[in-house]
Amino acid sequence: MKLGFVSAILPDLSLEEVVVFAAAEGFDCVELMCWPVGKAERRYAGVTHLDVAEFGADDAARVNELCAKAGVAISGLGYYPNPLSPDAAEAQVAIAHIKKVIAAAALLGVNQMNTFIGRDWTRSVDDNWPRFLEVWRPLVAYAEEQGVRIGIENCPMLFSNDEWPGGKNLAHSPAIWRRMFTDIPSASLGLNYDPSHLVWLMMDPHRPLWEFRDKLFHVHAKDVRLDGERLDDVGILATPLQYHTPKLPGLGDLDWGRFFSLLTDAGYDGPVCIEVEDRAYEGSLERRKASLVQSARYLRNYMA
Amino acid sequence: MKLGFVSAILPDLSLEEVVVFAAAEGFDCVELMCWPVGKAERRYAGVTHLDVAEFGADDAARVNELCAKAGVAISGLGYYPNPLSPDAAEAQVAIAHIKKVIAAAALLGVNQMNTFIGRDWTRSVDDNWPRFLEVWRPLVAYAEEQGVRIGIENCPMLFSNDEWPGGKNLAHSPAIWRRMFTDIPSASLGLNYDPSHLVWLMMDPHRPLWEFRDKLFHVHAKDVRLDGERLDDVGILATPLQYHTPKLPGLGDLDWGRFFSLLTDAGYDGPVCIEVEDRAYEGSLERRKASLVQSARYLRNYMA
Amino acid sequence: MKLGFVSAILPDLSLEEVVVFAAAEGFDCVELMCWPVGKAERRYAGVTHLDVAEFGADDAARVNELCAKAGVAISGLGYYPNPLSPDAAEAQVAIAHIKKVIAAAALLGVNQMNTFIGRDWTRSVDDNWPRFLEVWRPLVAYAEEQGVRIGIENCPMLFSNDEWPGGKNLAHSPAIWRRMFTDIPSASLGLNYDPSHLVWLMMDPHRPLWEFRDKLFHVHAKDVRLDGERLDDVGILATPLQYHTPKLPGLGDLDWGRFFSLLTDAGYDGPVCIEVEDRAYEGSLERRKASLVQSARYLRNYMA
Amino acid sequence: MKLGFVSAILPDLSLEEVVVFAAAEGFDCVELMCWPVGKAERRYAGVTHLDVAEFGADDAARVNELCAKAGVAISGLGYYPNPLSPDAAEAQVAIAHIKKVIAAAALLGVNQMNTFIGRDWTRSVDDNWPRFLEVWRPLVAYAEEQGVRIGIENCPMLFSNDEWPGGKNLAHSPAIWRRMFTDIPSASLGLNYDPSHLVWLMMDPHRPLWEFRDKLFHVHAKDVRLDGERLDDVGILATPLQYHTPKLPGLGDLDWGRFFSLLTDAGYDGPVCIEVEDRAYEGSLERRKASLVQSARYLRNYMA
Amino acid sequence: MKLGFVSAILPDLSLEEVVVFAAAEGFDCVELMCWPVGKAERRYAGVTHLDVAEFGADDAARVNELCAKAGVAISGLGYYPNPLSPDAAEAQVAIAHIKKVIAAAALLGVNQMNTFIGRDWTRSVDDNWPRFLEVWRPLVAYAEEQGVRIGIENCPMLFSNDEWPGGKNLAHSPAIWRRMFTDIPSASLGLNYDPSHLVWLMMDPHRPLWEFRDKLFHVHAKDVRLDGERLDDVGILATPLQYHTPKLPGLGDLDWGRFFSLLTDAGYDGPVCIEVEDRAYEGSLERRKASLVQSARYLRNYMA
Amino acid sequence: MKLGFVSAILPDLSLEEVVVFAAAEGFDCVELMCWPVGKAERRYAGVTHLDVAEFGADDAARVNELCAKAGVAISGLGYYPNPLSPDAAEAQVAIAHIKKVIAAAALLGVNQMNTFIGRDWTRSVDDNWPRFLEVWRPLVAYAEEQGVRIGIENCPMLFSNDEWPGGKNLAHSPAIWRRMFTDIPSASLGLNYDPSHLVWLMMDPHRPLWEFRDKLFHVHAKDVRLDGERLDDVGILATPLQYHTPKLPGLGDLDWGRFFSLLTDAGYDGPVCIEVEDRAYEGSLERRKASLVQSARYLRNYMA
Repeated sequence: MKLGFVSAILPDLSLEEVVVFAAAEGFDCVELMCWPVGKAERRYAGVTHLDVAEFGADDAARVNELCAKAGVAISGLGYYPNPLSPDAAEAQVAIAHIKKVIAAAALLGVNQMNTFIGRDWTRSVDDNWPRFLEVWRPLVAYAEEQGVRIGIENCPMLFSNDEWPGGKNLAHSPAIWRRMFTDIPSASLGLNYDPSHLVWLMMDPHRPLWEFRDKLFHVHAKDVRLDGERLDDVGILATPLQYHTPKLPGLGDLDWGRFFSLLTDAGYDGPVCIEVEDRAYEGSLERRKASLVQSARYLRNYMA
Repeated sequence: MKLGFVSAILPDLSLEEVVVFAAAEGFDCVELMCWPVGKAERRYAGVTHLDVAEFGADDAARVNELCAKAGVAISGLGYYPNPLSPDAAEAQVAIAHIKKVIAAAALLGVNQMNTFIGRDWTRSVDDNWPRFLEVWRPLVAYAEEQGVRIGIENCPMLFSNDEWPGGKNLAHSPAIWRRMFTDIPSASLGLNYDPSHLVWLMMDPHRPLWEFRDKLFHVHAKDVRLDGERLDDVGILATPLQYHTPKLPGLGDLDWGRFFSLLTDAGYDGPVCIEVEDRAYEGSLERRKASLVQSARYLRNYMA
Repeated sequence: MKLGFVSAILPDLSLEEVVVFAAAEGFDCVELMCWPVGKAERRYAGVTHLDVAEFGADDAARVNELCAKAGVAISGLGYYPNPLSPDAAEAQVAIAHIKKVIAAAALLGVNQMNTFIGRDWTRSVDDNWPRFLEVWRPLVAYAEEQGVRIGIENCPMLFSNDEWPGGKNLAHSPAIWRRMFTDIPSASLGLNYDPSHLVWLMMDPHRPLWEFRDKLFHVHAKDVRLDGERLDDVGILATPLQYHTPKLPGLGDLDWGRFFSLLTDAGYDGPVCIEVEDRAYEGSLERRKASLVQSARYLRNYMA
Repeated sequence: MKLGFVSAILPDLSLEEVVVFAAAEGFDCVELMCWPVGKAERRYAGVTHLDVAEFGADDAARVNELCAKAGVAISGLGYYPNPLSPDAAEAQVAIAHIKKVIAAAALLGVNQMNTFIGRDWTRSVDDNWPRFLEVWRPLVAYAEEQGVRIGIENCPMLFSNDEWPGGKNLAHSPAIWRRMFTDIPSASLGLNYDPSHLVWLMMDPHRPLWEFRDKLFHVHAKDVRLDGERLDDVGILATPLQYHTPKLPGLGDLDWGRFFSLLTDAGYDGPVCIEVEDRAYEGSLERRKASLVQSARYLRNYMA
Repeated sequence: MKLGFVSAILPDLSLEEVVVFAAAEGFDCVELMCWPVGKAERRYAGVTHLDVAEFGADDAARVNELCAKAGVAISGLGYYPNPLSPDAAEAQVAIAHIKKVIAAAALLGVNQMNTFIGRDWTRSVDDNWPRFLEVWRPLVAYAEEQGVRIGIENCPMLFSNDEWPGGKNLAHSPAIWRRMFTDIPSASLGLNYDPSHLVWLMMDPHRPLWEFRDKLFHVHAKDVRLDGERLDDVGILATPLQYHTPKLPGLGDLDWGRFFSLLTDAGYDGPVCIEVEDRAYEGSLERRKASLVQSARYLRNYMA
Repeated sequence: MKLGFVSAILPDLSLEEVVVFAAAEGFDCVELMCWPVGKAERRYAGVTHLDVAEFGADDAARVNELCAKAGVAISGLGYYPNPLSPDAAEAQVAIAHIKKVIAAAALLGVNQMNTFIGRDWTRSVDDNWPRFLEVWRPLVAYAEEQGVRIGIENCPMLFSNDEWPGGKNLAHSPAIWRRMFTDIPSASLGLNYDPSHLVWLMMDPHRPLWEFRDKLFHVHAKDVRLDGERLDDVGILATPLQYHTPKLPGLGDLDWGRFFSLLTDAGYDGPVCIEVEDRAYEGSLERRKASLVQSARYLRNYMA
């Protein structure tokens, strides 16, 4: 496998600085954030390490050269909006930009982009389904043409009251993935698997690794800690951050030894990108860098 | 404590038959269902063992005599509608009938009625709060006047897609109970505590017993089994019956020895009424009766 | 369900005495042992409460009258030899007598007989398979003709050095049951399910209940205790009685509440027969009777 | 085994009333308290159901007749003082009265008396040892002469500040029992085994059953609940009632199924006497009686 | 956080050698032992890496220069005597020397000194309390004047028979810390938190981190292993080393991932000093050095 | 301790290359495979890094020089055949070659060779015992003469159908080791302890460390993962690879912190050699090398 990180945690660094830092700390790869240039709509969003709006062959050559010189690969291009937003304009922007990210990935020869399915969070999974098919069938067809794989992250995007009750991303459970992959069967549609979300959703984070082994396109390494006493007070119908806390790998409830044990047996040999959303490490750029270094040191115990 | 059952499971028996059955099987008490006469709107609802619509002193005397003769007490009167329904008419019916149940409880000298707070299930707890206060302040005041205690069952009433996402009863967590009892502080407002709901809400069903010991007005004895493999597949954002199954006491995940251990230490000495919602025992009247007998035998291990 | 016991634990009582005892202690049914008259070849074998060698309609009428008068049903006829013994003569006796037990079950209208598949214990499961098919296809066909169901007990019959390494009964795991029922698909071939064997075989005793719900013909209630320190010393390659001890229900490692929880959900409504193999209760007839009474009291907590 | 209770919980009943109650509720036996007539020095002490001060053959005959008529046996005579008290006078009273209890047991043909070793609680086990030998060698010799067995209860008698730090009874751990039985090897010195004390002493309550199987003279059935949050606050150096609560059997942390599983395998066939020290059941005579009935019902699940 | 070690494990090295070793192995800081020069009274005591008896500004400048050059900080000055000893002379020496350590810490600008509250181990916590207030109010006032924080280590100092029963340090539980900080409320009095002691005291080592987050002045990283079979034999009333063994971090029962997870969320950003008391690593200077290197490697998995 | 690896995983490297790789990656030692030159009979067998067939003092000097220059020690010579094979010729080859390995170990001054006891896998332990004594008494005597210690690996060699039922190595449990060391008491016969086998044999891998501390001659670091769902399907009577998977240290069920905790307390200070049998890391030489590097990084957390 290749150890990397999600560049969103270093918004104050330029692409060059990100790549230099990655190389200096021995990372094999980076997932580059490709939000449209502009204002972030939420924490961890809105970072643009690669501006794909007008991205051409020259840009691709320049970026590839930069990476090659540093010895750091691009694990994928990341952009995580809500393409099924009930706000039609917002959805349209997301869909259009996803296509640009796909095109950029093809140009770069990375051939991997990661995103969300999206969701109208006020409606049930079933009620979202027709729109899911309508939006995603053409997107997947476009990715197939471009020879790019789309990795859907399995985060329900349900953290604040604004996202209550359904969250902004349909793809949060094995049952739903199965339905997705049955209705849009394509070698270009798979998962950007983040085991931490399954923990607070009270699901076994290991069991899907075997069933979905052909759909594991990209992996995010994030951890979470369930806070038992708070859960005892509010229960699972509360918004989830009331009873769990995102943490660095090794500081949460995941059993990373078991995770990599099953991941290796599933034949996975792709990127594992650290995703930092641990508030205790976000006070300064130095601390955010340190969080990546610490996480890498921890994960190297279980990765070749 | 007094061992009884919720009469809703015996809709085909008359009040007299219910009381005779209870006496024959050694039950100490029964919680009598008092729905308005008419069609049930959902499973386990709509049962009328006591018609409180036109309930007077004579009726009370007759019922009390019947119970006294059988040696079976009435633990409380039960009616579980949605008095905060977004359908104003439905809410109005519920509120008006709750008052009639309170009045009947006063007449009977039972002084205990059990119900739900209700909820507009499409809106958050916070968004429901103003209406909760508006509806419940007068109801509690009325109960105080009548000398009746209201026991709110802690079921979120979230089982089917129609109740998604919020369920039809606000009062499902210690955090919400605390808020309720702070905003409407009254010796007439307390809990009809059903430990089973806390299990599938992933909360400790024992911890609240000490904090809320003065609010334990009535107890329901029901059990549930979490179905791990199904939970692994759908996660806690699914509707709850996808990952848990209501069962008779002793056939679920509750630790009844520990429950009664802490309940006795909390000083509780009131009714414990078996509530049957176990589909495996609902095939016939005989089987439903047998489910009560089995549950009583099991619970007697832990109750004096 | 119907609570009963396996009559093998009362070899010193006549059929009449067994039935009278069962009635006096409130048992619903009994599984009657039907070994050929003669000397027992091992502990718990060789008991003949019903001599099926020359069993006719008159015998059946007499037995049925005896049971009807006592209000005790026959849950099944039991005979547990090794019909796949490498000793051809022994196998032949077993096969011939199984057919007589089937015929007797038909005559009695019980329509249930319980036995073992048998095994050449010196050979692997695969190496036994051709002979399994050869012996059992005609036996099952005969049972179908007679309208009798055969319940195969899932005991590996591997307790002593003489049965090492394979034991004397192939049918000990879900994987093997699946193969059996695929190769001989018949409504007359199912299981006499004893959850205790799965415990020391380190298998989940609950998981098969759903998959094999149509094959649950009869249930044995026995418990076992794993003896951890002895297991630490000898490991699972030792003969099993070196690390586990058969016990009465409630005195072992089984979670009977969970077992009956899943059994009821699987729709099982047949007999549950206590099988006593607890040496601590075998010192006298009185003690063996007491073991049945204690076990029944315990199991009634979980059974209607 | 024989199910009974410790008579200390019924101080307001006369011997006759105790025996009548025992018979009415189906108990097999009772352990009769034999404190010197006078004022109790602590909770649960000072009860005199048998005044052994001037106990002669006539008294024995009268008591035996009473018991025989009721069909209730005396499981043992109980008196639990501190014969190693640093107060020489107190110790002397204890020693002299223990001898009278032994004599009475011999006269009654019960041949079992239960008591404590005692301890100077301000001194270590080692520092108490010489005095233990000096006091107990003659006591055991006397018991041998009388043909009476002494069952030492394994309670450390460390509950209040007055008993801090060592408690008033040396005999609280397997290591100490081993030393006791090595230094005073006698068939008249054994244990009155109460598994509940091992729970809060953080010891396995099952492990000693096999090693000390020849020393199990009498068993007390009491349970305790560890209160985790309180323990988290004060730790094991606090006085023990700060972090645990004595409860009825089935309402604490003991696994009674496992306890009886190992007790039967250890060959124990003597009395099991319920000892009630559960404050939640001590409010009235009726409630204390009910606590015995409830406990018996629970324990009968595991006892023949 | 800053990773360091307690210098007591390197008594054979001079201050210079300690600092050089720390730098060479990448440690950020060291807690320097400041016992009065002379003979050690017990294992791990009596080490003098800084002689504070006659410590002046010049000494401070010299030490600070040494550390600055090596790039190793002083996390605090350590001296762990019994200032509440029943031996008045011993107590007086301790109190006087604690003041000298405080003064030296102020001169060095370290502003952190670590010690014990002390205890008359033959008396209860309550009985020690008046003397605690008498001794510690002036000490804390002095520390406030000097601008130095005192970190009280939470070790009960109860390891040998000589320290039985109460140990030589009152401050061993959250309940006692709460009382200390209520009775002497001062920003100069806090904790030198060692999670390992809570393990064998059967307390949750994580729970206090949030409540006492403002009192976490310094952290010791030591681990312990509970030895279950020995505990089963002697119980918690035995001296603690009979049932637990101090070990290096990672070789004991602590969950360091969870510890650092909660420590970071509590906002702690101070020193974490490895304290070695693992007999298996004390055979030689080389081995003791290696124990620090191993522990640091392990802890770096969880620390930035 | 000294960290090394078993050279069998690098069959494509020459001795020189193995030693150079070990040095480059910081390993302290290597266990060198010494199979007779020829074709491997099974996976992981047949590797010859040292050809001991004609091994003389010159060879020893050359090898020692090579190792000394690289700074890598030889932890032992390894050869794992079946010297108790029912095939007399195979057994004879094994015995003769074991003696050559012993002689080579003596010449090299390594004085440690590791092997299997062997077994006729079709016969019970008891039935193999006479032959065990006959073969091994002279072998141990020869080792004593040569001053070499034989470390018996505790693998049952039971992985495929060909090895069913008994496996090809008797020495798989503490009970059998005890018998071995009693019947052949010699300072030259001990264990090459691999904790992973005890895991799937359902034994505590830590408990033997204290009892057999004088017999721990060499340690293999391998891990295994029990696959619960597969075990639920086949049970422990299946061949073991149906329900468990060998994995790198840290990717299995072993608790390495606890293992090294008890190993250090047992006084072990010898070699710990990583043994790779993890199929997920065997695809290429590069990956096999990486597996050793990853395992070493993981184990260094717990080793000085």
